[in-house]
Amino acid sequence: MTTRPVDKVLAAVDSGLDQSLDRLFSLLRIPSISTDSAFAKDCAAAADWLVADLKSLGFEASARATGGHPAVVAKSAGGTGPHALFYGHYDVQPVDPLDLWETPPFEPRIATAPDGSKRIVARGACDDKGQVMTFVTGSLPVGVTMLIEGEEECGSKHLFDFVRANKADLAADVALVCDTGMWDADTPAITTSLRGIVSEEFKVVAANRDLHSGMYGGAAANPIHMLSRVIASIHGTDGRIAIPGFYDGVEDLPADILADWKGLNLTAEDYLGAIGLKHPIGEKGRLLIEMISSRPTCDINGIWGGYTGEGSKTVIPSEAWAKVTFRLVGRQNPVKVRDAFRAHVRSVLPDDCKAEFFGSRGSPALALPWDMPVLAKAREALTAEWNRKAVTIGSGGSIPIVGAFKDDLGLDSLLVGFGLEDDRVHSPNEKYDLKSFHKGIRSWVRILDAIAA
Amino acid sequence: MTTRPVDKVLAAVDSGLDQSLDRLFSLLRIPSISTDSAFAKDCAAAADWLVADLKSLGFEASARATGGHPAVVAKSAGGTGPHALFYGHYDVQPVDPLDLWETPPFEPRIATAPDGSKRIVARGACDDKGQVMTFVTGSLPVGVTMLIEGEEECGSKHLFDFVRANKADLAADVALVCDTGMWDADTPAITTSLRGIVSEEFKVVAANRDLHSGMYGGAAANPIHMLSRVIASIHGTDGRIAIPGFYDGVEDLPADILADWKGLNLTAEDYLGAIGLKHPIGEKGRLLIEMISSRPTCDINGIWGGYTGEGSKTVIPSEAWAKVTFRLVGRQNPVKVRDAFRAHVRSVLPDDCKAEFFGSRGSPALALPWDMPVLAKAREALTAEWNRKAVTIGSGGSIPIVGAFKDDLGLDSLLVGFGLEDDRVHSPNEKYDLKSFHKGIRSWVRILDAIAA
Repeated sequence: MTTRPVDKVLAAVDSGLDQSLDRLFSLLRIPSISTDSAFAKDCAAAADWLVADLKSLGFEASARATGGHPAVVAKSAGGTGPHALFYGHYDVQPVDPLDLWETPPFEPRIATAPDGSKRIVARGACDDKGQVMTFVTGSLPVGVTMLIEGEEECGSKHLFDFVRANKADLAADVALVCDTGMWDADTPAITTSLRGIVSEEFKVVAANRDLHSGMYGGAAANPIHMLSRVIASIHGTDGRIAIPGFYDGVEDLPADILADWKGLNLTAEDYLGAIGLKHPIGEKGRLLIEMISSRPTCDINGIWGGYTGEGSKTVIPSEAWAKVTFRLVGRQNPVKVRDAFRAHVRSVLPDDCKAEFFGSRGSPALALPWDMPVLAKAREALTAEWNRKAVTIGSGGSIPIVGAFKDDLGLDSLLVGFGLEDDRVHSPNEKYDLKSFHKGIRSWVRILDAIAA
Repeated sequence: MTTRPVDKVLAAVDSGLDQSLDRLFSLLRIPSISTDSAFAKDCAAAADWLVADLKSLGFEASARATGGHPAVVAKSAGGTGPHALFYGHYDVQPVDPLDLWETPPFEPRIATAPDGSKRIVARGACDDKGQVMTFVTGSLPVGVTMLIEGEEECGSKHLFDFVRANKADLAADVALVCDTGMWDADTPAITTSLRGIVSEEFKVVAANRDLHSGMYGGAAANPIHMLSRVIASIHGTDGRIAIPGFYDGVEDLPADILADWKGLNLTAEDYLGAIGLKHPIGEKGRLLIEMISSRPTCDINGIWGGYTGEGSKTVIPSEAWAKVTFRLVGRQNPVKVRDAFRAHVRSVLPDDCKAEFFGSRGSPALALPWDMPVLAKAREALTAEWNRKAVTIGSGGSIPIVGAFKDDLGLDSLLVGFGLEDDRVHSPNEKYDLKSFHKGIRSWVRILDAIAA
């Protein structure tokens, strides 16, 4: 039996795993929280670290100014096949509540799970530093341009202009994105649709100052109560979002895909059991897998107002705040959804209370073509690595830049990732299975080999 | 025309006003925030300051251990009339939101109002340091025991035991309390009823950890939404509190008092105009003055959950928190109200979500006797000082210790104070009119003179 070139590379991946982990740990130690300006220097440091690391692997690499946190662009000439644009991000989510972390979030460690398997624990272990580092290897059979940004967790706000301004530099035949998950720990997946997003912060204002509840309670409107009415009014008892016009552009799944999804038999116990819940709260009459991937949603991500310190304070505050996110599907228009939400909020509030909105951003949902040339190749490569047929799924999350790759660079994106449901992405004690990292690296080697062929 | 002794004392009050202000400012500089344990030393410092000040005025004074912040007890023998127990508190509310203060809250200053009048601006300027210092003078025609506690703003939790343990030491013929307000800037008032209170903190728990809204949005219960449903369900569209059993023990006003109150003609413009509101949100069909003094109420005083930092974070938190206060009237039972609230919260939550409750405390409402011997005397004294007939009113706030004075010491309380609606009690830029302070001191001189006669 002859040894194919790809087998040599896979063997090198296996023997070099410790060094790959050392490099990942170095990156994980940098607290590159993009959404909080206090960590801007750390974002720059993470970009610089990647530039140095990629140079050491033979890439031509630099950290590029974007108007926000820098974007890393790196190139390697590679072989004769199609040229790939790889996308990932080095920024991470905030770490609060910090007291729920078992060890400091930026001191990565290898932990042992109850079943004896190993996992990498740190903020960014999965999202997206661990995933990015599955791709950053030294031997590539195709030409690759890497684009690793630092603002994904705060909406990629400067990357869209950067892509438009650097079209020639970023030109490629296909985009590869590593920021998604597996179907389960044994089953690899290619993500072929992504939900869009609308997010903003808003406040409800009542009196022009904080009031003593003993003097004004019973007479003065309390903005916390009014904000609560607004939030309680978003969903109907049928689980549907009760904002007029919200479902414009949302379509039911084709019958064949719905049948496929039924066949996956995702139960509430499977999906919610590990997080301590039993009952899906989505639209009545829908499959759970629809709720989390093909249906639009709304979540309040944060709320605050009044006295939140120790003890009690008999205050009626003058304002109360919330952060909201909508996940969009199909042809839902982010601007129309935002405007419908704002009109709904104002319709719920009494005459005396005002609403104000801040930091709005949005991107539409995206469906990738099922006939993408690389899709079948990637599916075979993944199936070979995992000994389990790779599935194609819809993702509940959003990767807004994928739309820009299509619109500005003319590229379809292949979305492959190795995250798992229990990775605690955006939560305390985020982890990435060592198996995800190791077989993730091996998977990309196989995919690139397949693409090059 | 002969000069009565009281006129001499009043003249001394006038000529000594600057010194009285200096003493008040010294007390205001101590950040005695009782509800936050970080300020425990400052509470002790405020007690020590009062002890030294009262000693300098000829009182026998000491700071007594209570199990919490100390209580100041001071005595002066005085004349031949009835012995009075004076009650006030040296602790103050927290100062957040700090950025809304025009000057630092513990750096008292005299500000000039648009109409040219002077006001004392500081946390505690009115509640209750300014009010207490209207009473702390050197020449008293009756024997006085002063009880100045340090835990009023966190529920007087150790004072009840202290009063029971020191009955003999606190024995008196009548209690005098200075922690209430005027009817308006020109009309003095005696408060003859006080609302009770129930307060606690509670949280709604859904999943066992924070979740990524892209992965779980649409399927997992969001505790912020559930908490909002709970809060939105507290009041009906008729403004009534929709908790079963809540109104047990609440009675309508007697027809004659209702007629008196109608005669006061308190309008929404009068009461809410200055705080930027127009519409009372209380029970439909009730007078505004009922809503704020004789009807029970519920306010959420604080709410928090999820991500509240800069930027956006697509998280579904595992829990969300709120602080609630009920104001009670009539024969409402605090324990029954608390239990009815908890049952209501649990009835609103879906099966997957749990509620937990913390730091509960409560006291019933109180009605003082209209035939108290000192009431007529105090009314005459106040009318003489302000050249306007003093009115008797109900207060929307609570002073739980007044119930203990009745139950444990057998004392009725005379509640007289000089606070105004626009004093921003519990809010940024709290103030006390210099007129309230000056004429407040003069009022107590006249009241004590009348009681001694």
